[in-house]
Amino acid sequence: MLYLVGLGLSDETDITVKGLEVVKKAARVYLEAYTSILLVSKEILEAYYGREVILADREMVESNSDEILKESQDVDVAFLVVGDPFGATTHTDLVLRARELKIPVSTVPNASIMSGIGACGLQLYNFGQTISMVFFTDNWRPDSFYNRIKENRTIGLHTLVLVDIKVKEQSLENMARGRLIYEPPRYMTVGQCAAQMVEVEETRREGAYTKDSLAIGAARVGGKTEKFVCGTLEELCDADELLGPPLHSLVLLGRRSHDLERDFIREFALDKEKFDRIWAAEYGKQQ
Amino acid sequence: MLYLVGLGLSDETDITVKGLEVVKKAARVYLEAYTSILLVSKEILEAYYGREVILADREMVESNSDEILKESQDVDVAFLVVGDPFGATTHTDLVLRARELKIPVSTVPNASIMSGIGACGLQLYNFGQTISMVFFTDNWRPDSFYNRIKENRTIGLHTLVLVDIKVKEQSLENMARGRLIYEPPRYMTVGQCAAQMVEVEETRREGAYTKDSLAIGAARVGGKTEKFVCGTLEELCDADELLGPPLHSLVLLGRRSHDLERDFIREFALDKEKFDRIWAAEYGKQQ
Repeated sequence: MLYLVGLGLSDETDITVKGLEVVKKAARVYLEAYTSILLVSKEILEAYYGREVILADREMVESNSDEILKESQDVDVAFLVVGDPFGATTHTDLVLRARELKIPVSTVPNASIMSGIGACGLQLYNFGQTISMVFFTDNWRPDSFYNRIKENRTIGLHTLVLVDIKVKEQSLENMARGRLIYEPPRYMTVGQCAAQMVEVEETRREGAYTKDSLAIGAARVGGKTEKFVCGTLEELCDADELLGPPLHSLVLLGRRSHDLERDFIREFALDKEKFDRIWAAEYGKQQ
Repeated sequence: MLYLVGLGLSDETDITVKGLEVVKKAARVYLEAYTSILLVSKEILEAYYGREVILADREMVESNSDEILKESQDVDVAFLVVGDPFGATTHTDLVLRARELKIPVSTVPNASIMSGIGACGLQLYNFGQTISMVFFTDNWRPDSFYNRIKENRTIGLHTLVLVDIKVKEQSLENMARGRLIYEPPRYMTVGQCAAQMVEVEETRREGAYTKDSLAIGAARVGGKTEKFVCGTLEELCDADELLGPPLHSLVLLGRRSHDLERDFIREFALDKEKFDRIWAAEYGKQQ
Protein backbone atom coordinates (compact mmCIF):
# COMPACT_ATOMS: atom_id res chain seq x y z
CA MET A 1 0.00 0.00 0.00
CA LEU A 2 1.13 3.54 -0.77
CA TYR A 3 0.08 5.91 1.99
CA LEU A 4 0.00 9.62 1.23
CA VAL A 5 0.24 11.23 4.63
CA GLY A 6 -0.38 14.92 5.24
CA LEU A 7 1.88 16.51 7.87
CA GLY A 8 -0.10 19.68 8.42
CA LEU A 9 1.41 23.12 8.45
CA SER A 10 3.75 23.68 11.32
CA ASP A 11 5.70 21.18 13.39
CA GLU A 12 6.13 17.46 14.11
CA THR A 13 3.02 17.29 16.33
CA ASP A 14 0.69 18.41 13.52
CA ILE A 15 0.60 14.91 12.08
CA THR A 16 -2.64 13.07 12.87
CA VAL A 17 -2.67 10.07 15.19
CA LYS A 18 -3.68 7.97 12.17
CA GLY A 19 -0.79 9.37 10.13
CA LEU A 20 1.71 8.72 12.91
CA GLU A 21 0.61 5.08 13.12
CA VAL A 22 1.23 4.70 9.38
CA VAL A 23 4.69 6.26 9.68
CA LYS A 24 5.67 4.01 12.55
CA LYS A 25 4.63 0.82 10.72
CA ALA A 26 5.68 1.53 7.12
CA ALA A 27 8.61 -0.25 5.52
CA ARG A 28 9.97 3.03 4.10
CA VAL A 29 9.12 6.67 4.77
CA TYR A 30 9.71 9.44 2.22
CA LEU A 31 9.38 13.16 2.82
CA GLU A 32 8.46 15.39 -0.11
CA ALA A 33 10.65 18.37 0.56
CA TYR A 34 10.69 20.61 -2.47
CA THR A 35 7.25 22.24 -2.75
CA SER A 36 6.76 23.23 0.87
CA ILE A 37 8.44 22.87 4.23
CA LEU A 38 7.47 22.41 7.82
CA LEU A 39 8.85 24.86 10.34
CA VAL A 40 11.01 22.06 11.76
CA SER A 41 13.87 20.08 10.22
CA LYS A 42 13.97 16.51 8.91
CA GLU A 43 16.12 15.58 11.90
CA ILE A 44 13.39 16.63 14.32
CA LEU A 45 10.87 14.53 12.39
CA GLU A 46 13.22 11.53 12.49
CA ALA A 47 13.72 11.87 16.23
CA TYR A 48 9.97 12.20 16.73
CA TYR A 49 9.14 9.19 14.55
CA GLY A 50 12.06 7.16 15.89
CA ARG A 51 13.14 6.16 12.40
CA GLU A 52 14.84 7.22 9.20
CA VAL A 53 13.08 9.53 6.76
CA ILE A 54 14.25 9.61 3.13
CA LEU A 55 14.17 13.05 1.47
CA ALA A 56 12.36 12.90 -1.86
CA ASP A 57 13.43 15.73 -4.12
CA ARG A 58 11.68 16.82 -7.29
CA GLU A 59 13.88 14.61 -9.48
CA MET A 60 13.00 11.50 -7.47
CA VAL A 61 9.25 12.19 -7.38
CA GLU A 62 8.86 13.30 -10.98
CA SER A 63 11.35 11.09 -12.81
CA ASN A 64 12.08 8.20 -10.52
CA SER A 65 8.79 7.50 -8.78
CA ASP A 66 9.15 3.75 -9.28
CA GLU A 67 11.94 3.92 -6.71
CA ILE A 68 9.40 5.24 -4.19
CA LEU A 69 6.77 2.69 -5.23
CA LYS A 70 9.18 -0.24 -5.22
CA GLU A 71 7.69 -3.36 -3.59
CA SER A 72 4.69 -1.42 -2.31
CA GLN A 73 2.39 -4.09 -3.70
CA ASP A 74 3.68 -6.10 -0.75
CA VAL A 75 4.85 -3.62 1.88
CA ASP A 76 3.56 -0.30 3.14
CA VAL A 77 5.33 2.83 1.95
CA ALA A 78 4.58 6.23 3.48
CA PHE A 79 4.98 9.36 1.39
CA LEU A 80 4.82 12.42 3.64
CA VAL A 81 3.61 15.72 2.27
CA VAL A 82 3.62 19.04 4.10
CA GLY A 83 0.01 20.23 4.41
CA ASP A 84 -2.48 17.90 2.74
CA PRO A 85 -1.47 15.37 0.05
CA PHE A 86 -4.05 16.87 -2.31
CA GLY A 87 -3.82 20.46 -1.16
CA ALA A 88 -1.62 23.15 -2.64
CA THR A 89 0.73 20.55 -4.12
CA THR A 90 -0.92 17.51 -5.51
CA HIS A 91 0.80 14.27 -6.25
CA THR A 92 -1.61 13.15 -8.91
CA ASP A 93 1.23 11.75 -11.05
CA LEU A 94 2.43 9.49 -8.28
CA VAL A 95 -1.08 8.15 -7.66
CA LEU A 96 -1.67 7.55 -11.38
CA ARG A 97 1.60 5.62 -11.59
CA ALA A 98 0.64 3.56 -8.52
CA ARG A 99 -2.68 2.74 -10.18
CA GLU A 100 -0.84 1.52 -13.30
CA LEU A 101 1.24 -0.76 -11.10
CA LYS A 102 -1.90 -1.98 -9.28
CA ILE A 103 -0.65 -0.58 -6.00
CA PRO A 104 -3.46 0.40 -3.63
CA VAL A 105 -3.31 3.99 -2.40
CA SER A 106 -4.64 5.41 0.85
CA THR A 107 -4.68 9.05 1.88
CA VAL A 108 -4.36 10.49 5.37
CA PRO A 109 -5.63 14.07 5.05
CA ASN A 110 -4.43 17.00 7.09
CA ALA A 111 -4.62 20.78 7.23
CA SER A 112 -3.62 22.54 4.02
CA ILE A 113 -2.76 26.20 3.63
CA MET A 114 -5.80 26.26 1.34
CA SER A 115 -8.11 25.68 4.31
CA GLY A 116 -5.80 26.79 7.14
CA ILE A 117 -5.81 30.33 5.74
CA GLY A 118 -9.38 30.52 7.09
CA ALA A 119 -7.77 31.32 10.46
CA CYS A 120 -7.24 34.88 9.19
CA GLY A 121 -10.99 35.37 9.57
CA LEU A 122 -11.99 35.54 5.91
CA GLN A 123 -14.63 32.95 5.03
CA LEU A 124 -13.36 30.13 2.84
CA TYR A 125 -16.74 30.13 1.06
CA ASN A 126 -15.84 33.50 -0.42
CA PHE A 127 -12.52 32.52 -1.96
CA GLY A 128 -12.14 32.18 -5.71
CA GLN A 129 -9.37 30.34 -7.50
CA THR A 130 -5.95 30.21 -5.85
CA ILE A 131 -2.87 31.61 -7.57
CA SER A 132 0.86 31.06 -7.25
CA MET A 133 3.41 33.87 -7.32
CA VAL A 134 6.88 33.05 -8.59
CA PHE A 135 10.06 35.05 -7.99
CA PHE A 136 10.40 37.53 -10.84
CA THR A 137 13.79 37.61 -12.54
CA ASP A 138 15.30 40.22 -14.86
CA ASN A 139 13.78 38.58 -17.90
CA TRP A 140 10.95 36.45 -16.53
CA ARG A 141 8.09 38.36 -14.96
CA PRO A 142 5.04 36.20 -15.69
CA ASP A 143 1.79 38.12 -15.16
CA SER A 144 -0.88 35.53 -15.95
CA PHE A 145 -1.86 35.58 -12.26
CA TYR A 146 -3.31 39.01 -12.96
CA ASN A 147 -6.05 37.55 -15.15
CA ARG A 148 -7.04 35.09 -12.46
CA ILE A 149 -7.21 37.79 -9.80
CA LYS A 150 -9.28 39.91 -12.15
CA GLU A 151 -11.76 37.06 -12.60
CA ASN A 152 -12.05 36.58 -8.85
CA ARG A 153 -12.34 40.29 -8.14
CA THR A 154 -14.95 40.79 -10.84
CA ILE A 155 -17.30 38.51 -8.93
CA GLY A 156 -16.23 39.90 -5.56
CA LEU A 157 -14.16 36.97 -4.29
CA HIS A 158 -11.00 36.76 -2.19
CA THR A 159 -7.81 35.40 -3.76
CA LEU A 160 -5.28 33.29 -1.91
CA VAL A 161 -1.78 33.90 -3.27
CA LEU A 162 0.71 31.14 -2.54
CA VAL A 163 4.28 32.39 -2.74
CA ASP A 164 7.32 30.79 -4.27
CA ILE A 165 9.88 28.75 -2.44
CA LYS A 166 13.20 27.71 -3.96
CA VAL A 167 15.05 24.78 -2.51
CA LYS A 168 17.96 22.84 -3.99
CA GLU A 169 18.59 25.52 -6.59
CA GLN A 170 21.85 25.48 -8.51
CA SER A 171 23.55 28.64 -9.70
CA LEU A 172 23.85 28.84 -13.48
CA GLU A 173 27.60 28.38 -13.14
CA ASN A 174 27.34 25.30 -10.96
CA MET A 175 24.69 23.87 -13.25
CA ALA A 176 26.87 24.46 -16.33
CA ARG A 177 29.80 22.76 -14.66
CA GLY A 178 27.66 19.91 -13.38
CA ARG A 179 28.54 20.68 -9.78
CA LEU A 180 25.90 19.49 -7.33
CA ILE A 181 26.29 22.56 -5.16
CA TYR A 182 23.02 24.15 -4.10
CA GLU A 183 22.12 27.69 -3.18
CA PRO A 184 20.58 28.40 0.23
CA PRO A 185 16.78 28.01 0.19
CA ARG A 186 14.75 31.13 -0.61
CA TYR A 187 11.24 31.84 0.58
CA MET A 188 9.22 34.64 -0.94
CA THR A 189 7.87 37.13 1.57
CA VAL A 190 4.55 38.94 1.64
CA GLY A 191 6.47 42.14 0.91
CA GLN A 192 8.05 40.72 -2.25
CA CYS A 193 4.71 39.28 -3.35
CA ALA A 194 2.86 42.55 -2.79
CA ALA A 195 5.55 44.51 -4.64
CA GLN A 196 5.31 42.20 -7.66
CA MET A 197 1.53 42.52 -7.63
CA VAL A 198 1.72 46.33 -7.54
CA GLU A 199 4.30 46.31 -10.35
CA VAL A 200 2.11 44.20 -12.61
CA GLU A 201 -0.95 46.37 -11.98
CA GLU A 202 1.10 49.45 -12.83
CA THR A 203 1.97 47.84 -16.16
CA ARG A 204 -1.42 46.31 -16.99
CA ARG A 205 -3.64 49.07 -15.55
CA GLU A 206 -6.83 47.06 -15.99
CA GLY A 207 -8.04 47.77 -12.48
CA ALA A 208 -8.08 44.19 -11.21
CA TYR A 209 -6.86 45.83 -8.00
CA THR A 210 -4.80 48.85 -6.98
CA LYS A 211 -1.98 49.53 -4.55
CA ASP A 212 -4.73 50.64 -2.16
CA SER A 213 -6.62 47.34 -2.28
CA LEU A 214 -6.85 45.57 1.05
CA ALA A 215 -4.95 42.36 1.62
CA ILE A 216 -3.86 40.15 4.48
CA GLY A 217 -0.30 39.02 4.95
CA ALA A 218 -0.05 35.68 6.74
CA ALA A 219 3.00 34.07 8.28
CA ARG A 220 3.48 30.59 9.71
CA VAL A 221 -0.23 29.75 9.50
CA GLY A 222 -1.16 27.04 11.98
CA GLY A 223 2.01 27.49 14.02
CA LYS A 224 2.46 28.86 17.53
CA THR A 225 3.87 32.10 16.09
CA GLU A 226 1.16 32.49 13.44
CA LYS A 227 0.86 36.14 12.48
CA PHE A 228 -1.62 38.09 10.35
CA VAL A 229 -1.24 41.66 9.16
CA CYS A 230 -3.94 43.53 7.26
CA GLY A 231 -3.25 46.54 5.07
CA THR A 232 -3.20 47.86 1.55
CA LEU A 233 -0.89 46.13 -0.91
CA GLU A 234 1.34 49.19 -0.65
CA GLU A 235 1.46 48.90 3.15
CA LEU A 236 2.17 45.17 2.95
CA CYS A 237 5.24 45.85 0.80
CA ASP A 238 6.90 47.00 4.02
CA ALA A 239 5.38 44.62 6.58
CA ASP A 240 7.89 41.76 6.38
CA GLU A 241 9.61 42.68 9.61
CA LEU A 242 6.32 42.58 11.47
CA LEU A 243 5.39 39.25 9.88
CA GLY A 244 8.68 37.59 10.70
CA PRO A 245 10.22 34.40 9.26
CA PRO A 246 8.69 32.18 6.50
CA LEU A 247 6.41 30.70 5.34
CA HIS A 248 4.29 33.56 4.11
CA SER A 249 1.03 33.75 2.13
CA LEU A 250 -1.15 36.62 1.02
CA VAL A 251 -4.88 37.07 0.56
CA LEU A 252 -6.25 39.83 -1.63
CA LEU A 253 -9.73 40.75 -0.44
CA GLY A 254 -12.83 40.65 -2.62
CA ARG A 255 -15.50 43.27 -2.24
CA ARG A 256 -18.25 40.75 -1.44
CA SER A 257 -17.17 40.52 2.16
CA HIS A 258 -19.23 40.13 5.28
CA ASP A 259 -19.26 42.42 8.29
CA LEU A 260 -18.13 39.51 10.45
CA GLU A 261 -15.04 39.24 8.27
CA ARG A 262 -14.38 42.95 8.79
CA ASP A 263 -14.79 42.63 12.55
CA PHE A 264 -12.33 39.76 12.62
CA ILE A 265 -9.58 41.16 10.40
CA ARG A 266 -9.73 44.76 11.66
CA GLU A 267 -7.71 43.53 14.64
CA PHE A 268 -4.82 42.89 12.24
CA ALA A 269 -4.98 46.26 10.47
CA LEU A 270 -1.73 48.24 10.32
CA ASP A 271 -3.71 51.48 10.24
CA LYS A 272 -7.24 51.02 11.56
CA GLU A 273 -8.47 54.45 10.49
CA LYS A 274 -7.32 53.85 6.93
CA PHE A 275 -8.75 50.33 7.02
CA ASP A 276 -12.17 51.65 8.07
CA ARG A 277 -12.15 54.26 5.33
CA ILE A 278 -11.22 51.86 2.55
CA TRP A 279 -13.58 49.16 3.81
CA ALA A 280 -16.53 51.57 3.88
CA ALA A 281 -15.83 52.71 0.33
CA GLU A 282 -15.11 49.40 -1.36
CA TYR A 283 -15.86 46.31 0.68
CA GLY A 284 -18.79 44.64 2.39
CA LYS A 285 -20.82 44.79 -0.82
CA GLN A 286 -23.15 41.82 -1.02
CA GLN A 287 -24.48 40.96 -4.42
CA MET B 1 -6.90 29.89 26.76
CA LEU B 2 -9.62 28.88 24.31
CA TYR B 3 -8.36 26.18 21.98
CA LEU B 4 -10.24 25.60 18.73
CA VAL B 5 -9.28 22.07 17.77
CA GLY B 6 -10.02 20.56 14.37
CA LEU B 7 -10.96 16.87 14.43
CA GLY B 8 -10.52 16.14 10.76
CA LEU B 9 -13.04 14.34 8.66
CA SER B 10 -13.50 10.76 9.63
CA ASP B 11 -12.80 9.05 12.96
CA GLU B 12 -11.22 9.53 16.39
CA THR B 13 -7.67 8.99 15.07
CA ASP B 14 -7.89 11.94 12.67
CA ILE B 15 -7.12 14.38 15.45
CA THR B 16 -3.55 15.68 15.36
CA VAL B 17 -1.07 14.75 18.07
CA LYS B 18 -1.05 18.43 19.07
CA GLY B 19 -4.84 18.48 19.25
CA LEU B 20 -4.95 15.31 21.35
CA GLU B 21 -2.52 16.82 23.86
CA VAL B 22 -4.80 19.86 24.19
CA VAL B 23 -7.85 17.66 24.72
CA LYS B 24 -6.14 15.59 27.38
CA LYS B 25 -5.01 18.64 29.37
CA ALA B 26 -7.98 20.99 29.04
CA ALA B 27 -10.27 21.75 31.97
CA ARG B 28 -13.37 21.28 29.81
CA VAL B 29 -13.91 19.81 26.34
CA TYR B 30 -16.83 20.81 24.09
CA LEU B 31 -17.80 19.17 20.82
CA GLU B 32 -19.60 21.28 18.22
CA ALA B 33 -22.09 18.77 16.90
CA TYR B 34 -24.67 20.56 14.79
CA THR B 35 -22.93 21.67 11.58
CA SER B 36 -21.06 18.49 10.78
CA ILE B 37 -20.40 15.07 12.23
CA LEU B 38 -17.57 12.60 12.39
CA LEU B 39 -18.28 9.07 11.25
CA VAL B 40 -17.96 7.93 14.88
CA SER B 41 -20.07 8.73 17.95
CA LYS B 42 -19.36 10.99 20.90
CA GLU B 43 -18.99 7.90 23.07
CA ILE B 44 -16.12 6.63 20.93
CA LEU B 45 -14.42 10.01 21.23
CA GLU B 46 -14.87 9.98 25.02
CA ALA B 47 -13.40 6.49 25.29
CA TYR B 48 -10.48 7.50 23.06
CA TYR B 49 -9.78 10.71 24.99
CA GLY B 50 -10.40 9.06 28.35
CA ARG B 51 -12.63 11.91 29.50
CA GLU B 52 -16.01 13.53 29.26
CA VAL B 53 -16.96 15.54 26.17
CA ILE B 54 -19.77 18.10 26.42
CA LEU B 55 -22.02 18.36 23.35
CA ALA B 56 -22.38 21.97 22.24
CA ASP B 57 -25.54 22.49 20.23
CA ARG B 58 -26.37 25.53 18.14
CA GLU B 59 -28.22 27.19 20.99
CA MET B 60 -25.24 26.92 23.32
CA VAL B 61 -22.69 28.17 20.77
CA GLU B 62 -24.77 30.99 19.33
CA SER B 63 -26.69 32.24 22.37
CA ASN B 64 -24.82 30.99 25.38
CA SER B 65 -21.17 31.11 24.38
CA ASP B 66 -20.15 32.66 27.69
CA GLU B 67 -20.93 29.28 29.23
CA ILE B 68 -18.26 27.77 26.97
CA LEU B 69 -15.80 30.58 27.65
CA LYS B 70 -16.37 30.58 31.40
CA GLU B 71 -13.10 30.88 33.37
CA SER B 72 -11.01 30.39 30.25
CA GLN B 73 -8.94 33.41 31.20
CA ASP B 74 -7.50 31.07 33.81
CA VAL B 75 -8.00 27.52 32.55
CA ASP B 76 -7.76 25.85 29.15
CA VAL B 77 -10.99 25.09 27.34
CA ALA B 78 -11.03 22.94 24.19
CA PHE B 79 -13.73 23.49 21.60
CA LEU B 80 -13.69 20.61 19.12
CA VAL B 81 -14.88 21.16 15.57
CA VAL B 82 -15.29 18.48 12.91
CA GLY B 83 -12.96 19.30 10.04
CA ASP B 84 -11.03 22.53 10.56
CA PRO B 85 -12.15 25.24 13.02
CA PHE B 86 -12.10 27.80 10.18
CA GLY B 87 -13.16 25.51 7.37
CA ALA B 88 -16.69 24.93 6.15
CA THR B 89 -18.13 26.09 9.46
CA THR B 90 -16.40 28.99 11.04
CA HIS B 91 -16.70 30.01 14.62
CA THR B 92 -15.86 33.63 14.10
CA ASP B 93 -18.51 34.73 16.61
CA LEU B 94 -17.01 32.66 19.37
CA VAL B 95 -13.53 34.05 18.71
CA LEU B 96 -14.80 37.63 18.60
CA ARG B 97 -16.55 37.09 21.94
CA ALA B 98 -13.35 35.61 23.41
CA ARG B 99 -11.42 38.67 22.23
CA GLU B 100 -13.94 40.94 23.98
CA LEU B 101 -13.38 39.01 27.19
CA LYS B 102 -9.58 39.19 26.71
CA ILE B 103 -9.36 35.43 26.45
CA PRO B 104 -6.42 34.24 24.33
CA VAL B 105 -7.37 31.94 21.47
CA SER B 106 -5.25 29.26 19.82
CA THR B 107 -6.18 27.17 16.79
CA VAL B 108 -5.18 23.60 16.02
CA PRO B 109 -5.88 23.18 12.30
CA ASN B 110 -6.91 19.96 10.63
CA ALA B 111 -8.24 18.65 7.34
CA SER B 112 -11.42 20.34 6.12
CA ILE B 113 -13.79 19.10 3.45
CA MET B 114 -12.76 22.27 1.62
CA SER B 115 -9.26 20.91 1.12
CA GLY B 116 -9.92 17.19 1.63
CA ILE B 117 -12.12 17.19 -1.47
CA GLY B 118 -8.84 17.45 -3.43
CA ALA B 119 -8.58 13.67 -2.98
CA CYS B 120 -11.13 13.33 -5.82
CA GLY B 121 -8.36 14.38 -8.20
CA LEU B 122 -9.62 17.83 -9.13
CA GLN B 123 -7.05 20.53 -8.40
CA LEU B 124 -7.97 22.82 -5.52
CA TYR B 125 -6.41 25.71 -7.45
CA ASN B 126 -9.25 25.45 -9.94
CA PHE B 127 -12.13 25.73 -7.48
CA GLY B 128 -14.25 28.85 -7.29
CA GLN B 129 -16.48 29.84 -4.41
CA THR B 130 -18.10 27.09 -2.37
CA ILE B 131 -21.85 26.79 -2.05
CA SER B 132 -24.23 25.17 0.41
CA MET B 133 -27.31 23.21 -0.62
CA VAL B 134 -30.23 23.13 1.79
CA PHE B 135 -33.09 20.63 1.83
CA PHE B 136 -35.89 22.06 -0.32
CA THR B 137 -39.33 22.07 1.27
CA ASP B 138 -42.74 22.53 -0.34
CA ASN B 139 -42.55 26.28 0.01
CA TRP B 140 -38.85 27.02 0.45
CA ARG B 141 -36.69 26.23 -2.56
CA PRO B 142 -33.91 28.82 -2.41
CA ASP B 143 -32.01 29.07 -5.70
CA SER B 144 -29.39 31.72 -4.98
CA PHE B 145 -26.74 29.00 -5.25
CA TYR B 146 -27.45 29.03 -8.96
CA ASN B 147 -25.97 32.52 -9.35
CA ARG B 148 -22.79 31.47 -7.58
CA ILE B 149 -22.38 28.39 -9.74
CA LYS B 150 -22.96 30.51 -12.82
CA GLU B 151 -20.18 32.88 -11.76
CA ASN B 152 -17.78 29.99 -11.21
CA ARG B 153 -18.72 28.26 -14.45
CA THR B 154 -18.43 31.46 -16.46
CA ILE B 155 -14.74 31.58 -15.62
CA GLY B 156 -14.32 27.82 -15.97
CA LEU B 157 -13.97 26.87 -12.30
CA HIS B 158 -15.12 23.87 -10.29
CA THR B 159 -17.75 24.33 -7.58
CA LEU B 160 -17.78 22.44 -4.30
CA VAL B 161 -21.34 21.93 -3.09
CA LEU B 162 -21.67 21.22 0.62
CA VAL B 163 -24.92 19.48 1.43
CA ASP B 164 -27.34 20.04 4.27
CA ILE B 165 -27.42 18.12 7.49
CA LYS B 166 -30.24 18.37 9.99
CA VAL B 167 -29.65 17.37 13.57
CA LYS B 168 -31.78 18.08 16.62
CA GLU B 169 -34.73 19.12 14.47
CA GLN B 170 -38.15 19.42 16.09
CA SER B 171 -41.35 18.64 14.21
CA LEU B 172 -43.65 21.66 13.90
CA GLU B 173 -46.06 19.99 16.29
CA ASN B 174 -43.43 19.26 18.92
CA MET B 175 -42.08 22.80 18.55
CA ALA B 176 -45.57 24.29 18.96
CA ARG B 177 -46.16 22.27 22.09
CA GLY B 178 -42.72 23.01 23.46
CA ARG B 179 -41.80 19.34 23.57
CA LEU B 180 -38.04 18.78 23.37
CA ILE B 181 -38.46 15.74 21.15
CA TYR B 182 -36.14 15.65 18.18
CA GLU B 183 -36.45 14.05 14.77
CA PRO B 184 -33.79 11.55 13.64
CA PRO B 185 -30.84 13.28 11.95
CA ARG B 186 -31.05 13.75 8.19
CA TYR B 187 -28.11 13.98 5.82
CA MET B 188 -28.58 15.16 2.27
CA THR B 189 -27.28 12.76 -0.34
CA VAL B 190 -25.54 13.46 -3.62
CA GLY B 191 -28.67 12.21 -5.37
CA GLN B 192 -30.92 14.70 -3.59
CA CYS B 193 -28.43 17.49 -4.21
CA ALA B 194 -28.11 16.69 -7.92
CA ALA B 195 -31.89 16.47 -8.31
CA GLN B 196 -32.35 19.91 -6.71
CA MET B 197 -29.66 21.34 -8.98
CA VAL B 198 -31.35 19.90 -12.08
CA GLU B 199 -34.72 21.21 -10.93
CA VAL B 200 -33.42 24.75 -10.48
CA GLU B 201 -31.71 24.74 -13.88
CA GLU B 202 -34.96 23.58 -15.45
CA THR B 203 -36.70 26.59 -13.90
CA ARG B 204 -33.99 29.19 -14.47
CA ARG B 205 -32.73 27.96 -17.85
CA GLU B 206 -29.75 30.34 -17.87
CA GLY B 207 -27.30 27.63 -18.84
CA ALA B 208 -25.11 27.77 -15.73
CA TYR B 209 -25.01 24.01 -16.22
CA THR B 210 -27.25 21.28 -17.62
CA LYS B 211 -28.33 17.83 -16.52
CA ASP B 212 -25.49 16.57 -18.71
CA SER B 213 -22.80 18.56 -16.93
CA LEU B 214 -20.13 16.43 -15.28
CA ALA B 215 -19.90 16.25 -11.53
CA ILE B 216 -18.31 14.13 -8.85
CA GLY B 217 -20.21 12.63 -5.99
CA ALA B 218 -18.09 12.14 -2.89
CA ALA B 219 -18.87 10.10 0.21
CA ARG B 220 -17.02 9.88 3.52
CA VAL B 221 -14.04 11.88 2.26
CA GLY B 222 -10.91 11.07 4.25
CA GLY B 223 -12.39 7.89 5.70
CA LYS B 224 -11.43 4.27 5.05
CA THR B 225 -14.58 3.80 2.94
CA GLU B 226 -14.13 7.05 0.99
CA LYS B 227 -15.91 6.76 -2.34
CA PHE B 228 -16.01 8.92 -5.47
CA VAL B 229 -18.40 8.57 -8.38
CA CYS B 230 -18.18 10.67 -11.54
CA GLY B 231 -21.08 11.21 -13.90
CA THR B 232 -23.53 13.73 -15.26
CA LEU B 233 -25.82 15.43 -12.77
CA GLU B 234 -28.61 13.26 -14.16
CA GLU B 235 -26.57 10.11 -13.55
CA LEU B 236 -25.66 11.24 -10.05
CA CYS B 237 -29.35 11.56 -9.18
CA ASP B 238 -29.35 7.76 -8.99
CA ALA B 239 -25.90 7.02 -7.59
CA ASP B 240 -26.67 7.12 -3.86
CA GLU B 241 -26.63 3.36 -3.47
CA LEU B 242 -23.17 3.20 -4.99
CA LEU B 243 -21.94 6.03 -2.78
CA GLY B 244 -23.28 4.55 0.43
CA PRO B 245 -23.83 6.19 3.83
CA PRO B 246 -23.24 9.90 4.67
CA LEU B 247 -21.56 12.35 4.63
CA HIS B 248 -21.81 13.28 0.99
CA SER B 249 -20.51 16.24 -1.04
CA LEU B 250 -20.68 17.11 -4.71
CA VAL B 251 -18.33 18.90 -7.10
CA LEU B 252 -19.62 20.40 -10.33
CA LEU B 253 -16.79 20.52 -12.84
CA GLY B 254 -15.60 23.66 -14.56
CA ARG B 255 -14.51 23.58 -18.18
CA ARG B 256 -11.00 24.89 -17.43
CA SER B 257 -9.80 21.47 -16.38
CA HIS B 258 -6.47 19.83 -16.87
CA ASP B 259 -5.80 16.51 -18.60
CA LEU B 260 -4.31 15.19 -15.38
CA GLU B 261 -7.63 15.85 -13.68
CA ARG B 262 -9.39 13.90 -16.42
CA ASP B 263 -6.97 10.99 -16.09
CA PHE B 264 -7.57 10.87 -12.36
CA ILE B 265 -11.36 11.14 -12.25
CA ARG B 266 -12.07 8.93 -15.28
CA GLU B 267 -11.47 5.99 -12.94
CA PHE B 268 -14.63 7.04 -11.05
CA ALA B 269 -16.84 7.47 -14.14
CA LEU B 270 -20.15 5.58 -14.12
CA ASP B 271 -20.06 5.38 -17.90
CA LYS B 272 -16.55 5.87 -19.27
CA GLU B 273 -17.61 6.14 -22.92
CA LYS B 274 -20.10 8.86 -22.09
CA PHE B 275 -17.55 10.57 -19.84
CA ASP B 276 -14.99 10.67 -22.68
CA ARG B 277 -17.55 12.09 -25.11
CA ILE B 278 -18.70 14.86 -22.80
CA TRP B 279 -15.18 15.69 -21.67
CA ALA B 280 -13.94 16.02 -25.25
CA ALA B 281 -16.80 18.35 -26.13
CA GLU B 282 -16.86 20.60 -23.09
CA TYR B 283 -13.96 20.23 -20.72
CA GLY B 284 -10.19 20.56 -20.73
CA LYS B 285 -10.44 24.06 -22.14
CA GLN B 286 -7.57 26.20 -20.86
CA GLN B 287 -8.03 29.91 -21.09
